[in-house]
Amino acid sequence: MHTYPDCIPCILRASAGGARLTGAPDPVTWLIVTQGARLAASWDRLLPPILLGAEVGRLLRQVLRAADPYLAEKRAANAAALSRYPRWKDEVARAPDPLFHALQLAAAGNSLDLGLHARLDGTEVDAAAAVPFGRNDYAAFCRQLDGARAVLYLADNAGEIVLDRILIEELVGRGKRVTVAVRGSPTLNDATADDAEAVGLGTIAEVITTGSDVPGVFLDECSAAFRRRFRSADLILSKGMGNFEGLSQTEAPLFFLFQAKCYPVAQEAGVPAGSLVLLQQHG
Amino acid sequence: MHTYPDCIPCILRASAGGARLTGAPDPVTWLIVTQGARLAASWDRLLPPILLGAEVGRLLRQVLRAADPYLAEKRAANAAALSRYPRWKDEVARAPDPLFHALQLAAAGNSLDLGLHARLDGTEVDAAAAVPFGRNDYAAFCRQLDGARAVLYLADNAGEIVLDRILIEELVGRGKRVTVAVRGSPTLNDATADDAEAVGLGTIAEVITTGSDVPGVFLDECSAAFRRRFRSADLILSKGMGNFEGLSQTEAPLFFLFQAKCYPVAQEAGVPAGSLVLLQQHG
Repeated sequence: MHTYPDCIPCILRASAGGARLTGAPDPVTWLIVTQGARLAASWDRLLPPILLGAEVGRLLRQVLRAADPYLAEKRAANAAALSRYPRWKDEVARAPDPLFHALQLAAAGNSLDLGLHARLDGTEVDAAAAVPFGRNDYAAFCRQLDGARAVLYLADNAGEIVLDRILIEELVGRGKRVTVAVRGSPTLNDATADDAEAVGLGTIAEVITTGSDVPGVFLDECSAAFRRRFRSADLILSKGMGNFEGLSQTEAPLFFLFQAKCYPVAQEAGVPAGSLVLLQQHG
Repeated sequence: MHTYPDCIPCILRASAGGARLTGAPDPVTWLIVTQGARLAASWDRLLPPILLGAEVGRLLRQVLRAADPYLAEKRAANAAALSRYPRWKDEVARAPDPLFHALQLAAAGNSLDLGLHARLDGTEVDAAAAVPFGRNDYAAFCRQLDGARAVLYLADNAGEIVLDRILIEELVGRGKRVTVAVRGSPTLNDATADDAEAVGLGTIAEVITTGSDVPGVFLDECSAAFRRRFRSADLILSKGMGNFEGLSQTEAPLFFLFQAKCYPVAQEAGVPAGSLVLLQQHG
């Protein structure tokens, strides 16, 4: 998808929030936000917003001299979600349709977003799980899954990957081989290989990286190795808004699973803002 | 007060919202937001944020070719607040301390802010009236009021001025001569002379203007006539965040009355974000 006008203030707000997480003094945060505004002022709106997010994120890490301003927040989000894992796992096991319930929880897990909440403690997920699906291509997903041997799972945020793990366990339990792709290096509170390891994803699935620090999969920015895996996949489950932003124009056997947390993404997905979404890629 | 980093995304978000109110197509909104980002990128942070807000507001009106993008919203906010006037008036009359209750309602009226709510219907006020004062210089206010013959009242938003009217009626009832200053021309959803007339302020007080389109009183930008009135006032009651932003460094017999709706203003006022504030100017 292209960058909406609303994405500019949203990305700048996230950069100020990122600076505050590291306790940066106001003049440093000021420098980050005004340099971010300079990037935004000459931005090509036909590019997806995650690319501007990536540029501002690089600026943030460079000015703060911090490899990962969100590290503590990600660890806290993983720990908070892990402490709720047994309860969610039990909920899925008791559900009339465990696969659908796991999809719903994983979509709700997309609410674990530092762009949305100043601190993450896991309680956001239970609230989001009660949100209705604005688009629900579950029947099509089940059909495609039946014929697939392997699933490429594109992860999104730390914390959220605990909910992804529960969904992936459902897929593995149905005999699918699952490969999980995380970000190549830190960007926002997105999950990296360290987060995948922290929540035990490596024990049930193969973990690979996109080879990129963009907070969403945009193929031009990914490693050749990742692109090959993407192009050969027979079913791809893409979590989160960032991956949708980067892949909404890409032809592939894709299903998007996320919460449409902002006006631009809700518009592109054709749902009311706030909705959960399970959307089969058109075309 | 100076401009905080957080003010940049906030002002750009408001400009996107203002464009959307007039039904501007995305490319027009894009132009406004990116040109706003250009202004922000070279902004002098020692200036108050309302001056950047004014610049972006001028850009908005120029690109949209609309003298007042917020006109319909302001009229709706005045009408919604007027329909609640009898109930609020009655509340004040029955309160143990009607002057204090009127101050509290007027502070809560500051929640009628299009930067905060997409649409205004008056119900925001009742919610905000339940918010505690983070700073309450009521005793000092009563002392100063006792010795004052006249009060200069600096208004803020449309809709909100209905609550101001109730407070001004309390002041007039105590024998004070009140002059209300509104903005010189449209800016955000701030009250102008038209709004003052629409809610009947002219029948109980003299209405003047700041002679400026800045969404807050910043003396350098006001007319000489307004500055004279300001300098000769023996008590000034300043409503809203914008007026606080512009006057927080100005020596004058000032009391600020507002809701601290954002982190920067809450920091400057020394209260938790969200608090109501009645603050005597220091120095």
